Amino acid sequence: MADRKHRVVIVGGGFGGLAAAKALAGADVEIVLIDRRNHHLFQPLLYQVATAALSPSEIAWPIRHLLRRQSNARVLMATVIGVDQASRAVLLEDGGSVAYDSLVLATGAQHAYFGHDDWETFAPGLKTVEDATAIRRKLLLALEAAERETDPARRRALLTFAIIGAGPTGVEMAGAIVELGHTSIKGQFNTLSPADLRVVLIEGADRVLLNFEPDLSEYTLNALRRMGVEVELGQPVVGIDRDGVSFGDQRLDTKTIIWAAGVAASPVAKWLGIDSDRAGRVQVEPDLSVPGLPDIFVIGDVAGILQPNGKPVPGVAPAAKQAGKHVARVIRRRLSGDMSALPFRYKHAGDLATIGKSSAVIDFGWLKLKGWFAWWVWGFAHIYFLVETRTRIVITMNWLWIYLTGQRSARLITHGEATSRKPLDEVDED
Amino acid sequence: MADRKHRVVIVGGGFGGLAAAKALAGADVEIVLIDRRNHHLFQPLLYQVATAALSPSEIAWPIRHLLRRQSNARVLMATVIGVDQASRAVLLEDGGSVAYDSLVLATGAQHAYFGHDDWETFAPGLKTVEDATAIRRKLLLALEAAERETDPARRRALLTFAIIGAGPTGVEMAGAIVELGHTSIKGQFNTLSPADLRVVLIEGADRVLLNFEPDLSEYTLNALRRMGVEVELGQPVVGIDRDGVSFGDQRLDTKTIIWAAGVAASPVAKWLGIDSDRAGRVQVEPDLSVPGLPDIFVIGDVAGILQPNGKPVPGVAPAAKQAGKHVARVIRRRLSGDMSALPFRYKHAGDLATIGKSSAVIDFGWLKLKGWFAWWVWGFAHIYFLVETRTRIVITMNWLWIYLTGQRSARLITHGEATSRKPLDEVDED
Repeated sequence: MADRKHRVVIVGGGFGGLAAAKALAGADVEIVLIDRRNHHLFQPLLYQVATAALSPSEIAWPIRHLLRRQSNARVLMATVIGVDQASRAVLLEDGGSVAYDSLVLATGAQHAYFGHDDWETFAPGLKTVEDATAIRRKLLLALEAAERETDPARRRALLTFAIIGAGPTGVEMAGAIVELGHTSIKGQFNTLSPADLRVVLIEGADRVLLNFEPDLSEYTLNALRRMGVEVELGQPVVGIDRDGVSFGDQRLDTKTIIWAAGVAASPVAKWLGIDSDRAGRVQVEPDLSVPGLPDIFVIGDVAGILQPNGKPVPGVAPAAKQAGKHVARVIRRRLSGDMSALPFRYKHAGDLATIGKSSAVIDFGWLKLKGWFAWWVWGFAHIYFLVETRTRIVITMNWLWIYLTGQRSARLITHGEATSRKPLDEVDED
Repeated sequence: MADRKHRVVIVGGGFGGLAAAKALAGADVEIVLIDRRNHHLFQPLLYQVATAALSPSEIAWPIRHLLRRQSNARVLMATVIGVDQASRAVLLEDGGSVAYDSLVLATGAQHAYFGHDDWETFAPGLKTVEDATAIRRKLLLALEAAERETDPARRRALLTFAIIGAGPTGVEMAGAIVELGHTSIKGQFNTLSPADLRVVLIEGADRVLLNFEPDLSEYTLNALRRMGVEVELGQPVVGIDRDGVSFGDQRLDTKTIIWAAGVAASPVAKWLGIDSDRAGRVQVEPDLSVPGLPDIFVIGDVAGILQPNGKPVPGVAPAAKQAGKHVARVIRRRLSGDMSALPFRYKHAGDLATIGKSSAVIDFGWLKLKGWFAWWVWGFAHIYFLVETRTRIVITMNWLWIYLTGQRSARLITHGEATSRKPLDEVDED
């Protein structure tokens, strides 16, 4: 052990893992950050990739690149499948292992279908770059197929887009799909009119943005309806299949369903052989370590921790970042010999969501904003929090361009050629 | 037929087809442009997507968007499988058909493996957006796998990149891979050094850029070698498999092979039931119509036509564009009652190719340029010919950024998670 450095293994290069690695810059430790992907993703803007406003490379960066100036950190692209507590090592899918002295698990969450995993085929969720380009392909191909469809019922189903779940992602997707649909259809299709487009937002609870203050929910509901989004509240989804979605006692025929309703934590609890809550989260100590396993920390969407007010710390980027920094602080203190507990205090910066391209709601607690001014604040906040200088410039330009011209730059259908199997009779009707 | 407009069906939304459609703007015809993809692709810059300098949406635009202001044109996303000359209709894969009065076939070319179709699995070519992101994934995953490989021979194979064919695409890929490798490795990997990287360009002919003047070939050869590219001339490839490539009497172990050696025209000759040359091209009349089928035109990479000097019109973007415009002119003249033949005259604008990020060769015929000044001319020429104003700005910025910082913005591995199956023993060696 003589001159061997304390090794901190971080699993996951999302907001939490990356913040932990960066907060350990200069510390006398060896950091190994493991992720099965090569990139960090700015998830809050992923819905804009799904709706063709941004390109993947504008909101994702190689983790190696982000840590290139940090000499105590190395990056490993590998898939973790477990933790061997006896040998204090992380186990990899390829049979290898990586020993740790401190372990930070920041593996995030995935979509959850509440026991209906078969729904995933028809209602993809939005967590990865591939999810976003797949949804973009689905949205754009539906318009292409509708242009050629002569059967009125099938045509209607192709032009109906359902979003399940009215949290920030669902609200933002609904607004963005209305705008994508309108700007794409205008002048570019022969048989489609913007009025044919139906965007239906389905929510089990009785208001949108359940985590926001009720008056902001109310404002958002009205703003969505003004945009033309049909909002169905208090309507839990009971069935999803190839041809549509059933909710409450209603049935909606649609070829495009997007899941924004629920997530579950990745299987960290199973790796550690401990209990988790219903959503798969691990309950952690106030200092974010695992009860009885002081060298293992769990942060971000995979950690369950209550604030002093009794509410859980929300699964948002700022919470994950704060937790990552906190763990770095705990590790530094311990290395300096201070083993006293340092409890994590989550500072809630605010809630915010956009509704289309010129309205938003923001709740800072001490200040509530809504409307176009909130939209500008939202835009600046997101640009400010982007990781790379270059991306800030590019996204600012991109948004200005869309704002001024309405043109979305990324309307590419990739990994999908023409697929409609319908005869094209209408083309021959002069 | 009373008030039915003359319908021009264009198959293919590449340089030729798009130019034909645009040159018919305002004409008293109904244009139907059919493509199996939704986007026009600026292929000359595709190698920059494959080497992570540009994003797909920076060089591809929905065809609908490009034709949105042209009221006599409609776009159909569909796959053509044949031409029914009796009923004068194009046949679609989904069973439908589209009637034509004039037909323009501009379906381009695909990679050709000279009878070795099994090589494609190991040596992908570069024609589509998906090809480019697949090659980008292959290049970046090879570096990730090399970082973790302990066996010296396997490590060497992972760090060896072979490009087959030293035309403009092969030369540009070789230069760009050297730069991608060097900038990616620098400071971002622990076990790799830029000196480990081998880029081998293999050519069957006895010089690079066979279509250029010999002194520019010579210059390019030297510039490539100065960059560190190993160039093997007069070495026809005789075998390609999972572990490497055999050429002449040599064998190169490599995990990454890129095919830039040959293309064949799409099956237009078969659709028309006529003969084609060895590369699948249809020999056309001087006005670009098919012999005996005056209402059917074949343009671009799929047309075989000789210049007055006896050399074939090259398969480059400017030639396809000129042919598209020419066909539009012929159709307009015929509609005005002038049936006299109008022969196509190809104007050769010049040959150009880049070698890495600060050298290029350009041959305008009356002027030859090489070195850094040629690179700037190349850059301006490409930006000038990009279809969209917005893209011009974005690409200019992107290139300036790379030029100034060396950072490539699009180094994303998508559609591929960690895949190495090697034990990670080295990670545990402290």
